[in-house]
Amino acid sequence: MPATNFADRLTAACREKRSAVCVGIDPRVSLLPAEFKPRRDTPIEHAQAISAWARELVAVIAPLVPVVKPQIAFFEALGAPGFRAYHETVLAAQEKGLLVIADVKRGDIGSTAEAYAEGHFALIGADAITVNPYLGRDSLDPYLTHCRAAGKGIFVLVKTSNPGSSDLQDLWTGDAPLSRRVAKMVRDAGADPSLVGASGLSCVGAVTGATFPDELRDLRAAMPATPLLVPGYGAQGATAADCAKAFLANGTGAVVNSSRGITFAFRSGTHAERFGEKRWRDSVAAAVYEMGDALAAATGTAKPA
Amino acid sequence: MPATNFADRLTAACREKRSAVCVGIDPRVSLLPAEFKPRRDTPIEHAQAISAWARELVAVIAPLVPVVKPQIAFFEALGAPGFRAYHETVLAAQEKGLLVIADVKRGDIGSTAEAYAEGHFALIGADAITVNPYLGRDSLDPYLTHCRAAGKGIFVLVKTSNPGSSDLQDLWTGDAPLSRRVAKMVRDAGADPSLVGASGLSCVGAVTGATFPDELRDLRAAMPATPLLVPGYGAQGATAADCAKAFLANGTGAVVNSSRGITFAFRSGTHAERFGEKRWRDSVAAAVYEMGDALAAATGTAKPA
Repeated sequence: MPATNFADRLTAACREKRSAVCVGIDPRVSLLPAEFKPRRDTPIEHAQAISAWARELVAVIAPLVPVVKPQIAFFEALGAPGFRAYHETVLAAQEKGLLVIADVKRGDIGSTAEAYAEGHFALIGADAITVNPYLGRDSLDPYLTHCRAAGKGIFVLVKTSNPGSSDLQDLWTGDAPLSRRVAKMVRDAGADPSLVGASGLSCVGAVTGATFPDELRDLRAAMPATPLLVPGYGAQGATAADCAKAFLANGTGAVVNSSRGITFAFRSGTHAERFGEKRWRDSVAAAVYEMGDALAAATGTAKPA
Repeated sequence: MPATNFADRLTAACREKRSAVCVGIDPRVSLLPAEFKPRRDTPIEHAQAISAWARELVAVIAPLVPVVKPQIAFFEALGAPGFRAYHETVLAAQEKGLLVIADVKRGDIGSTAEAYAEGHFALIGADAITVNPYLGRDSLDPYLTHCRAAGKGIFVLVKTSNPGSSDLQDLWTGDAPLSRRVAKMVRDAGADPSLVGASGLSCVGAVTGATFPDELRDLRAAMPATPLLVPGYGAQGATAADCAKAFLANGTGAVVNSSRGITFAFRSGTHAERFGEKRWRDSVAAAVYEMGDALAAATGTAKPA
């Protein structure tokens, strides 16, 4: 039996959970609830603390959201023990039925990209990864083999959510900014029928920040069959109305990420007062509901159950 | 005492070894000499085999070349054990007096880039890393703090050596191709006096493939104080004459990488006949000398001692 297309898996998960929220897992030991604080200040103990926290975190959110996005940089900061904690986090999330988009932003040529695909798809088993397009179309191809054969997906950086994204991504290239050229590359790469699912969506997705809502609207139109991974909600300044521009008319086609705004909400504002550190699990669940409600109101779709 | 500028360290190492050869470490278990073949087909044993081979490799080349470039993708392909082997390889190379440019091609925003810098500079201790510019100038800044404080360096991807590099990097952006815009960003980022060494070179370098020698010549002129890391020699098709365009008039300012053309030369052609698998160390040394001689002849500088 051929593997189910990643876009179909993502669409089904969003429908099942009635949510398009992606929870970003960006661990910092200094932000963990006190119960996870390592006793010693070593990479191994820090990594173990992060792994234990992430395991609890995914248990809290698994009934509520379709997908998580671990940011590998915060694991790599701890070296090999951190990389192990990253692998454990991917497995823990999948054991709970969550899809995993590994935010690795890899980008390299031919056989090197194939090595990344082996590591992150075949060995670690992420359902999808983020990919950097600067090296060109041939740097994407090795991942597509895994997309076809094993139901994996990629999200190619098109327009990122940081202020500096304008430095290169907005450069005018004759008839469109660079990000639109990348969008065309993503659309073309994903249009191969072997990569398109029953949902009509391709397993070749794009990262499109909601902090630039006009560009997001244009990019949604330019890539009508491309799943969008949308960063920028909350702490980075994008609103639910901004994010709503990422969805297709039928309410599918996008997931919206929030990281610390969910996982570490208990550290500030009303969540600190209402829940505090001991009730961090309740804070996480409440933050997911609040974000889901805001997105549902902005997109006009049903609220999360 | 402030840390010595990375560009000065690289220039001094090239002078001491009388060589501008960078040996790329791109390990594949299937290519290792028989003495390192793992007994079992597990990621842990594969990673141990790679680590043992890399330790022997750096002992062979340490007297001959200034710098090595481990490609982390081939380590990540083995998961956490591979990441440990990567860390061990960095340390083994530095113990032998080699500089290490970690080919990680990371690129991410703000605090995420800072986490990569913590991992690859502060914890693992690479002397320099390769960085992807697609996210813009603010994605470079977190690395520069480590460059100033700890004598580290970065090599920003400007024009890569693969055929697909033309897809985006050659796009015309009004008055120049995208790669030239990135070159300007690299030059400007590196021009801060706190980043420029006594050699006149900045610790903000660039990756410029020798497979496009005309662009390489132009990029060298556009970034006169920027160290260049030059891939593409040998297997990818660039000649020593192509690579010569990367050097400044005084013979400094660039290192030229070769990976499998050195490390696995014993597997094919005249090296297979002359040395074979058992004398792989002699093959590595001979390949380094051959490349050094070719570069010296093309650049008109003294041959390696």
